[in-house]
Amino acid sequence: MKPGTLYGLGLGPGDPDLMSVRADRLLRAARHVAFFRKAGRSGQARRIVNGMLHADAIEFPMEYPVTTEIPVSDPGYNAALSAFYTDCVAHLRALIESGEDVVVLCEGDPFFFGSFMHIYTRLRDHVPVEVVPAITGMSGAWTATGHPVTWGDDILTVMMGTLPEETLATQMSSSDAIVVMKIGRHIEKVKSALKQAGKFDAAWLIEFASMPNQTVQKLADAGDKITPYFSIIVVHGQGRRP
Amino acid sequence: MKPGTLYGLGLGPGDPDLMSVRADRLLRAARHVAFFRKAGRSGQARRIVNGMLHADAIEFPMEYPVTTEIPVSDPGYNAALSAFYTDCVAHLRALIESGEDVVVLCEGDPFFFGSFMHIYTRLRDHVPVEVVPAITGMSGAWTATGHPVTWGDDILTVMMGTLPEETLATQMSSSDAIVVMKIGRHIEKVKSALKQAGKFDAAWLIEFASMPNQTVQKLADAGDKITPYFSIIVVHGQGRRP
Repeated sequence: MKPGTLYGLGLGPGDPDLMSVRADRLLRAARHVAFFRKAGRSGQARRIVNGMLHADAIEFPMEYPVTTEIPVSDPGYNAALSAFYTDCVAHLRALIESGEDVVVLCEGDPFFFGSFMHIYTRLRDHVPVEVVPAITGMSGAWTATGHPVTWGDDILTVMMGTLPEETLATQMSSSDAIVVMKIGRHIEKVKSALKQAGKFDAAWLIEFASMPNQTVQKLADAGDKITPYFSIIVVHGQGRRP
Repeated sequence: MKPGTLYGLGLGPGDPDLMSVRADRLLRAARHVAFFRKAGRSGQARRIVNGMLHADAIEFPMEYPVTTEIPVSDPGYNAALSAFYTDCVAHLRALIESGEDVVVLCEGDPFFFGSFMHIYTRLRDHVPVEVVPAITGMSGAWTATGHPVTWGDDILTVMMGTLPEETLATQMSSSDAIVVMKIGRHIEKVKSALKQAGKFDAAWLIEFASMPNQTVQKLADAGDKITPYFSIIVVHGQGRRP
């Protein structure tokens, strides 16, 4: 039996019109479509492709056993996720070995953070795999601000809001352009780090970049706003501009 | 007269199949297509769209007056480029004000380095502008390596090979994942900085990512290879992986 192929399909920042031509074509033809989601939710990745799936597509939602219920530092967190990925992979591998192609939907770019890589590393030595890169969520975010993020020789640092405040502040101080992802409940810590680095007034907050509910504002104007986990903060570089 | 629109059209890393659905549609319909190139060359952006332009498309090549003939630090460099951008913009603005849409081809993502932003900042207050984000060249590069670039809470730093060696080494030391762009004749300096930061053996060299002439190798295996300006060096992060 000739095996199928596992496709890590980057969906881009959220607007289906920003998917690549290749991703669009593979998605519309796919008979098996897998995606991650939080239990009880429809899932952001699945929502992005609403109305695009083949009439015969069989969906395989992969529901995280934990998200924020256990701290990431707890050994139980990694153990629970590891068991979960093992289960997901067993199902996908069986499908692919039976000759079926399987598309795994990936928000943003499959190799830039995200969960696909945990499937990828477990399957790459066993079945054919193809990764389709995509526009990152951060690219959607800086485009939404209407200002280029990097000029000339600017240094760009990308970091997660989950990092300690001191790490954030140090990195922010030594970089020209800054992207902070995974904001959510970390927003006050991120704000404080930006202030320490003297970059708070230059920061922008982007929610749902490229999606119908997109919001874009200076972070200083956001007040005590509660913002989603997938919000992005951008500080633009100020490099050479002839 | 209703003005046309200036489109900053991100082409992505080079494979036309990786352009966004929106970019592909706009490009194929465009009647005015502008692009940068070095004098005497066909130009990388123009090459990417070979065979995709409308039969009636009018092309407007914008040829850099200098590239590496004058050091970037020379005031003459900025002055020459500034005059060049002023000329380009006058032509584009006249077209748009006469009611024509104009597409400017941008390698990679229009707001992530590159030359489009110099057109953009000069025209954004005068004519309608739409920026179409794209897959970055670096995303094409890390996808080509077959390894995810960032995991968990990894910090990613993106820098230009044109920076001083000490700046490169310092940034490399304090980051998990690293991307260095614009390599070319800076390769020995970048190698030395990677060695200082203890990351030389983990580095990959990618040339012409996603294009037919793509090459991917460990930097340590590249020997004294002469590599193009648009080569990219990637060091993958080693973050949390359940």
